[in-house]
Amino acid sequence: MRVAKVTNEKLEFNNAAGQGDGPASTDDALYRTLVERLGADRLSSDASVRDAHASDWSDAPRVAPAWIVMPRSPQEVAAALDCVRSFGGHVVVQGGMTGLAGGATPREGEIALSLARLDAIEAFDEAGGTVTVQAGVPLATLQQYVEAAGWFFPLDLGARGSCQIGGNAATNAGGNRVVRFGTMREQVLGLEVALPDGTLLSMMNRVQKNTTGIDLKQLFIGAEGTLGIIVRLVLKLVPALERSSTALCAMRDFEQATRLLKRLRAGLPGLSSFELMWQDFTDAAAQLTGARAPFDTRYPLYALIETLNADDDSAVLERVLTRALEDEIVADAVVAQSLEHARQLWQYREAVGELLAALKPHAAFDVGLPMEKMASFVANMRATLAARYPDSTHLFFGHLGDGNLHLLSGPYRDAATLHDVETCVYRAVARAGGCISGEHGIGVLKTPYLPLSRSAGELATMRALKALFDPQRVLNVGRILDA
Amino acid sequence: MRVAKVTNEKLEFNNAAGQGDGPASTDDALYRTLVERLGADRLSSDASVRDAHASDWSDAPRVAPAWIVMPRSPQEVAAALDCVRSFGGHVVVQGGMTGLAGGATPREGEIALSLARLDAIEAFDEAGGTVTVQAGVPLATLQQYVEAAGWFFPLDLGARGSCQIGGNAATNAGGNRVVRFGTMREQVLGLEVALPDGTLLSMMNRVQKNTTGIDLKQLFIGAEGTLGIIVRLVLKLVPALERSSTALCAMRDFEQATRLLKRLRAGLPGLSSFELMWQDFTDAAAQLTGARAPFDTRYPLYALIETLNADDDSAVLERVLTRALEDEIVADAVVAQSLEHARQLWQYREAVGELLAALKPHAAFDVGLPMEKMASFVANMRATLAARYPDSTHLFFGHLGDGNLHLLSGPYRDAATLHDVETCVYRAVARAGGCISGEHGIGVLKTPYLPLSRSAGELATMRALKALFDPQRVLNVGRILDA
Repeated sequence: MRVAKVTNEKLEFNNAAGQGDGPASTDDALYRTLVERLGADRLSSDASVRDAHASDWSDAPRVAPAWIVMPRSPQEVAAALDCVRSFGGHVVVQGGMTGLAGGATPREGEIALSLARLDAIEAFDEAGGTVTVQAGVPLATLQQYVEAAGWFFPLDLGARGSCQIGGNAATNAGGNRVVRFGTMREQVLGLEVALPDGTLLSMMNRVQKNTTGIDLKQLFIGAEGTLGIIVRLVLKLVPALERSSTALCAMRDFEQATRLLKRLRAGLPGLSSFELMWQDFTDAAAQLTGARAPFDTRYPLYALIETLNADDDSAVLERVLTRALEDEIVADAVVAQSLEHARQLWQYREAVGELLAALKPHAAFDVGLPMEKMASFVANMRATLAARYPDSTHLFFGHLGDGNLHLLSGPYRDAATLHDVETCVYRAVARAGGCISGEHGIGVLKTPYLPLSRSAGELATMRALKALFDPQRVLNVGRILDA
Repeated sequence: MRVAKVTNEKLEFNNAAGQGDGPASTDDALYRTLVERLGADRLSSDASVRDAHASDWSDAPRVAPAWIVMPRSPQEVAAALDCVRSFGGHVVVQGGMTGLAGGATPREGEIALSLARLDAIEAFDEAGGTVTVQAGVPLATLQQYVEAAGWFFPLDLGARGSCQIGGNAATNAGGNRVVRFGTMREQVLGLEVALPDGTLLSMMNRVQKNTTGIDLKQLFIGAEGTLGIIVRLVLKLVPALERSSTALCAMRDFEQATRLLKRLRAGLPGLSSFELMWQDFTDAAAQLTGARAPFDTRYPLYALIETLNADDDSAVLERVLTRALEDEIVADAVVAQSLEHARQLWQYREAVGELLAALKPHAAFDVGLPMEKMASFVANMRATLAARYPDSTHLFFGHLGDGNLHLLSGPYRDAATLHDVETCVYRAVARAGGCISGEHGIGVLKTPYLPLSRSAGELATMRALKALFDPQRVLNVGRILDA
């Protein structure tokens, strides 16, 4: 058991901050009560601090919070909630603020509760591979911490340096390795949650298998902070996997892609990524980044494959791909011969950031589709969008291993057109039996479309749960469900 | 997409059954209303049928249900619940009745609702590897059905021929392969549930990644039928894994066992079982079955290892174990050279059934423990039980990969002593931060001990959820939570 306390000095409010100019527009009495219960250095109403907390990474309109509360312990989070509730106030929870659905962007009049100071790694079972952390620990900090002891935390996403582990759980984050390790939900053994009634609900299970009644923590994973605030987590780890092997494959059609995925999942248990890119995506990526074309011939589909293992998998990967070539499951394939080569192969997939910037203002989708519907969905959607919006670019890629499809479409100069594109795509997703978000969540931006993905009974049940846990509607109101 | 309907003729009630002698002891008007809404052939009050539904596989005292309802569709399950609720009746849900915690054994006056006739396999996405089934499909039927198409359903347990897939979800079943594939929870993509208010709640998600709000299906997985009746499921599959490799390892202490597990998890991604047996267990198994001792020397601990892969893993297994021998992580090891040899190695572990019978009346535990506490827990508990109950035998084994420890202790001639043993073990589990059930569940038999595993806040939240979903207390009352 090792215990660490990582303190981020940058998070200290400036001198006198917390008293500062006092609140801008909300209840003075609540502010004074919070100062009394938590201490003045837990609060700030400075304009610059408020501005820094006015928006997450999404395109939701910026709104500065009334003020910011930064508790330093789970107990302080609960006390802050208790206070705000008793005064009839409203709280927006803020983690690393890297969300893309507007869930952490304040709504008018909300108090921002930031978890940045809950940043302790509390316990580490090095024999069993479990770690107990506070919600505000950044993902990359956790990854590095456990790697130093020969363990590996498999969740990974581009925002790893900024996003916090509590936010990863609240949004059930995904990323590129879900095909092997599952989403954040599968990494969580236990949670502690501050409830809107001001109590701490302890569900700090530490064992892998637990069948002692209703698994309550599941309610809070992916609930985007609407039922309670995740303050502590018990996470499971996997042993360090130091060797990765990479390959790029070309396919003639989607059926080849699904057959290849099935073949790889069976023959390569170390398979950790299977990223699919349609030709329009790789063409645009090559054009934008100047990357060389992957093969002499262009193909309709490409799959970027990665394995993680203690030993080098590339011989097995070559053998499996050679057989796949013979069996006409792939049209061409290249296995990376060096780290630099692997980096080159990832270049197309990692052009996403530049493509996002180039197509602004854009519509970016992260829908989920049943595998048997994906090929026809992409074909129909490509034709529909090309006909309706011939001046925009429409690029398809995704994590085929888990049915998650990204569509990047833009630019669109006005909000009404953007809304049309979204409605068109989400309705088609609903017709195909898919879901409107596979990893970015609903936040405030997708609440109007939620009924396309969830049944009337589910929406009613979610509202009933919201009423049960947060009857006074203190917490993250307007996220997932309409305000 | 393939669709099948498996009909089990044995499930038809006899002629005139359903009318028969009419109900034995409960409300005539409710019985008549059920006959009107569902049809006479959906009900039975025959003494022989009632007797067949009087107990699950546990030691809970037999109680014949007032009568039996066997709906043939999800709609009929919901209608039956609606009827019973409107008359103030009580329902116990029955699947394959293989549970070991008494959850499916009726309580006095309950009507048994059997899911045996909901046995259709409704849809099969062969490209993506998902299957849609009704709750009453036996686990083995599902396994065989998907194997015929090159897919594999990884959940497996001894009761596979009798247990039903809906019951596997309601109890979050585990088994021997959790270290690789997770419990039943990880196999479920979507559910449809009949609620006590008589409605069907559809959560039939078909995609692997779905972040569209609260994941409501999780509430019903492992809730042992207390919140609703699972009637349909969408399950995910893995590609067929046709080759298994088996090894038996001997270790000098528990630390070697955890180091070996970590080494194997890293170097053998196909690792599917890691079954730990303490020496007292293997000695008793050898004595009872006449199996040869695994090695010339006796060792404190043995691990039975299995991998599942498309290709033969035994060369890799041999390499990893040779290195482990060199590094003194194992004391001795043997890799099976044939299927017959593998069967011999499994012999010790599979002696459990005979040991259970030999030690009757026994106390059988399936507790979960944090890995760092397991060695001391076993040492302390062995000493404590040997001192208190010197005439009984106490055997330890478990699924080390997931912290699940079995303890088999007996015989005990009277109920009071059995109760003492249980209290002693469960209190020690609570002190070690473990859980009182890792796979068998709470049912009616473990409700008195639940507060040792769940916090006061969790118990209150479970009661609040029960009140939300089942305010009139129609369904599986007294399971998990006290009546």
